[in-house]
Amino acid sequence: MFSGRFDQLVQALRILPSVGPKSAQRMALHLIMKNKEGALGLAHALNEATSYIHECAVCHSLTENEVCDICLSNDRDEQLLCVVESPADVMAIEQSGSFKGKYHVLGGHLSPLDGIGPEEIGIPYLIQRLSDGLVTEVILATNATVEGQATAHYLVEAAKHLPVNMTRIAQGVPQGGELEYVDSHTLSQAVHNRMRMK
Amino acid sequence: MFSGRFDQLVQALRILPSVGPKSAQRMALHLIMKNKEGALGLAHALNEATSYIHECAVCHSLTENEVCDICLSNDRDEQLLCVVESPADVMAIEQSGSFKGKYHVLGGHLSPLDGIGPEEIGIPYLIQRLSDGLVTEVILATNATVEGQATAHYLVEAAKHLPVNMTRIAQGVPQGGELEYVDSHTLSQAVHNRMRMK
Repeated sequence: MFSGRFDQLVQALRILPSVGPKSAQRMALHLIMKNKEGALGLAHALNEATSYIHECAVCHSLTENEVCDICLSNDRDEQLLCVVESPADVMAIEQSGSFKGKYHVLGGHLSPLDGIGPEEIGIPYLIQRLSDGLVTEVILATNATVEGQATAHYLVEAAKHLPVNMTRIAQGVPQGGELEYVDSHTLSQAVHNRMRMK
Repeated sequence: MFSGRFDQLVQALRILPSVGPKSAQRMALHLIMKNKEGALGLAHALNEATSYIHECAVCHSLTENEVCDICLSNDRDEQLLCVVESPADVMAIEQSGSFKGKYHVLGGHLSPLDGIGPEEIGIPYLIQRLSDGLVTEVILATNATVEGQATAHYLVEAAKHLPVNMTRIAQGVPQGGELEYVDSHTLSQAVHNRMRMK
């Protein structure tokens, strides 16, 4: 429609997550007709981000430098290490403001059927990171999915010989959750892991 | 989070319609971590599209050339002119495959309170386009909103002196529409504009 370059832009926009053909068309029209400056800004930001952002050499989160700000920070507790699956999880935990230690990003979870074993998600490197004795508690914050749970359990086994405490983030009813809409597995976990109040 | 360039990319993605802060973050992470090549392709497509796509000199739709393919086409009925508000509407009608004439894009609708009068949406130019006597029917396909209706009525008045038929696209119950969920204004229009079947 309209021109080859318009169709190319629509196609290019479709690589964005949850953008289908209709949304891509709407986005392309919006950019061309109402915000050419914004479109050029977005092109620039994409070029810059793809050139400069890469994995942190220490925690495997994202950074523009050799090592990310969180790893370099002196204000964070080096004894606490939170293990997550992806940089998106680092972002989510940071935004919750609930954690002031350091991170370790696995870059995935164990999935033997897809050929993803401990080596592929850098578990040997994590164990090596834990071996210097600096970390006293590892918080396993992999997803609460089957694969995330399996990965957490594997890590507990893999670190058995190390003098480090390992904890798992709590599972239960989410904030604002109404019991009648919570799935029964979550509810059974919530009852099982109940906490004493008095 | 992560780095300045990451935040800039998130901000830049927010210019896209219906992309909020959470979606922009998810898009940025997806591009940086899973599809750098796609991100570079998108940047290229944005640069190309903003440089080369502009308004058609005749119909004011979008094109890469002086005049768009539809205006130049010999296969289309020059006697039929469909007036729409925006290039997005040209696209929608083309995709419906229901029209084989030519188009005229107003680039908006009358909205006196916002200072948008006939001059601002090029109605004098449209009247001039109709004056050469080539067009025999103008299909008014402005939106079925209050402003779109007002614009259609204004056009009928403005072209009163010209020997040209003017029609309005039909309004009624949409395909698949269940009467109990159709708003009462639409339903009353549908009853009023009922068509004889036998």
